[in-house]
Formats: sequence, C-alpha cells, structure tokens
Amino acid sequence: MQTRLDIPTQGPGLYDITGAVAQQVAGEGLCTVFVRHTSCSLLVQENADPDVPRDLLAWLDRLVPPADHPAMAYLRHTAEGPDDMPAHIKAALLPVSLQIPFSGGRLGLGTWQGIFLVEHRTRPHMRQVIVHIRRDT
Amino acid sequence: MQTRLDIPTQGPGLYDITGAVAQQVAGEGLCTVFVRHTSCSLLVQENADPDVPRDLLAWLDRLVPPADHPAMAYLRHTAEGPDDMPAHIKAALLPVSLQIPFSGGRLGLGTWQGIFLVEHRTRPHMRQVIVHIRRDT
Amino acid sequence: MQTRLDIPTQGPGLYDITGAVAQQVAGEGLCTVFVRHTSCSLLVQENADPDVPRDLLAWLDRLVPPADHPAMAYLRHTAEGPDDMPAHIKAALLPVSLQIPFSGGRLGLGTWQGIFLVEHRTRPHMRQVIVHIRRDT
Repeated sequence: MQTRLDIPTQGPGLYDITGAVAQQVAGEGLCTVFVRHTSCSLLVQENADPDVPRDLLAWLDRLVPPADHPAMAYLRHTAEGPDDMPAHIKAALLPVSLQIPFSGGRLGLGTWQGIFLVEHRTRPHMRQVIVHIRRDT
Repeated sequence: MQTRLDIPTQGPGLYDITGAVAQQVAGEGLCTVFVRHTSCSLLVQENADPDVPRDLLAWLDRLVPPADHPAMAYLRHTAEGPDDMPAHIKAALLPVSLQIPFSGGRLGLGTWQGIFLVEHRTRPHMRQVIVHIRRDT
Repeated sequence: MQTRLDIPTQGPGLYDITGAVAQQVAGEGLCTVFVRHTSCSLLVQENADPDVPRDLLAWLDRLVPPADHPAMAYLRHTAEGPDDMPAHIKAALLPVSLQIPFSGGRLGLGTWQGIFLVEHRTRPHMRQVIVHIRRDT
C-alpha cells in the first residue's frame, strides 16, 4: 500500500511524476504523495504549456532570491550555499504532500492537472517520494 | 464515498462551500476535498469578517500582479489573458486539496474556520470539486 | 483514532510537535494533522539548524508586514491588532493540514524533516491540533 519512488533531479524544475503515481492506483480510494525532503516540493500544476513551469519558477526566484542577493542579506543559514535557504522557504510555500481521490482505477485529476516534483536546489539530487494508496472497501 | 460538487464562480473571490462539504459527513473519519483545476484553489480561512477575504485577495493581487503589469513583463504564458498565468501561480501557493478529520458527524473545523473555493480567474467558471469521505470503522 | 493536542505558544515561532505526533503512530497507515485556527499553521520543515526557522520567519515578515506598515495601508481587517490580518494571510500560504504516511510504527519523515506548529500571532495562545491516525489493515 506504500511505494517509494526515487526521482533524480538536475537543478530547479518541475519533474512530471503523474505516470509513476497513476500506475499505483486501482479501484477506488485516496492517494497520498509525500516528499521526504525540505528543499524540494510536490505540486499539482498545469501539464500542457512548458511556459507555465518556466514562468512559475521565474516568479518564485523573484519572490525568494538567492542568499547572495543584496535583498537577502539578513539570512543566516547560508553555509550550505546561496540556493539552500531559499529552497527551504520555497519548500514552506509549496506542498510537502498531496491527496488525490481516485475511482475506476484513475486519479481524479482534471484534464490540465499533472503531478510534479519541484526541485529547488541547483545541484543534482535523488529525491524520495512515498506514494500511499488507500482503497475504499 | 466520493461526491462531486459543481461550484459556479463569477470572478475572483472566496466562495463558501462549508455547508456543501459538511453535509457529506456522518460518523467519524477523514474528509478530503480536491479541486480539479489549476487556476483556482481551496482554502480553510476565517469565516466571519468579509474584510478578511477582501484583504487576502488584495494582498494576493499585489504579490502576483496581472501579466500586463510592467513588473510581470518576463512572463511568457500570456495567450490566455493577463489573469491566467497569475492564476496558475496563485494556484501553486494555495491548496489544491484539504483534509479535515470529522467525528460525531461534524467536521473538526475550529469556530472561525470555513472551507472556501478561491477563484483566481476573471471570467465566470464552473469549478469541479471532489469530496472524498472515509469513515473510520 | 483521533487525538487532540493543545499547544501553548508565546509569539511567532516554529514549535516542534514531531514527538507528540509520532507517539500516536503504530503499525502502518496514514497520519493527518489538522490545526483548528486561521492565524497559525502547520509545517514540515528542517529540524536541525535554528537559523532556518529564524530566516523563514524573517522572510515571511518581509512578505507580509504588520498592518501598521505603510505598505499595508490598504488592509481593512485591522481591529484585532496589526498582527492579525497578516496572520490570516500567512495562514493561507502555509498548510492547515499535513498528511504523513507511516510504517513499522514510524512516520515516513526524511532525516531532516520535523513537524511544526507555526505561530503567526504576537500574544500567547493555546492552539488545538487534531491528529487523525488511520491504520492500513
């Protein structure tokens, strides 16, 4: 009922995990996705135009600039690099877990919704995601 | 155990769906609410003073101005109107799903908590929400 | 299967409730934590360096200044003090509920993840949190 996905990431971006989550699902119930990190996120977001994730990341970078940006001079948690504390802040704003009902073996996502892992760090990482499936009986 | 609500919206605002969700609930368990769109959100928020949703929306509009605002000139996903990409950004910040425990047939909401659909788009929409009820046995 | 935690707070901060949640857990299943207020939040965040919550709170205060700050002059919901409407806004951005799978009697948290109640108000409060445990069978 629980599966772990290992998602490799190469820098900031939205990594589509819709298929990997969908294939855990059968029958009717509730799917929970949980990411085991504090510098990346999960997100349900538009799945069609690649400009949407690009614009979203550009906006997030303006909202939370790197720690070496003058506007962020008040940050103290800087020893792990200029992308680290901003990654924690972004991880506070975007979800650490998602819950999606399913029925007839299909996730209840809308037409334009995909499930993404959002990487906030610059360097490559291997990210662990738990998919918990609870079938209604 | 799953019900779909169809919520008509007329522009940005918080639409109270507390009653529609509450009437799905009986006994003890966990209620999940999921919205099937990427340009509106769900939110648990203050239910008493209408100035609270007004102030919240005003703040969100300053945080994420329309795409035709000079500060947003870097956006590329603009073909669907100046309110579309900002709606996707707001939908990334606010929840796509909510989980609320219930017992004695009542949602575990605090006194001042209501459940809202938050519309981010300007034009009228019909929004689909899935309410998933799982009773403890 | 539902337990209520009462968490006393003394002003803005991240209050670690990981232990109180973890001790509700046995076997395998899904843990849901829900906070019954609209001026505080729940959060999974880094649990090691105290500079992380400090920097996060400092950033949030810049994003949402007190209502008596000139930049916030458009706010109308100000009768409950300059920290109240900003608290509602922060409570819209950070989670009201968290879902964490568990197995072998242990929450599926990553090494650096803790569960926190985030207080947004200035004065001391007693905060109510519901922990809902659903074991897989």
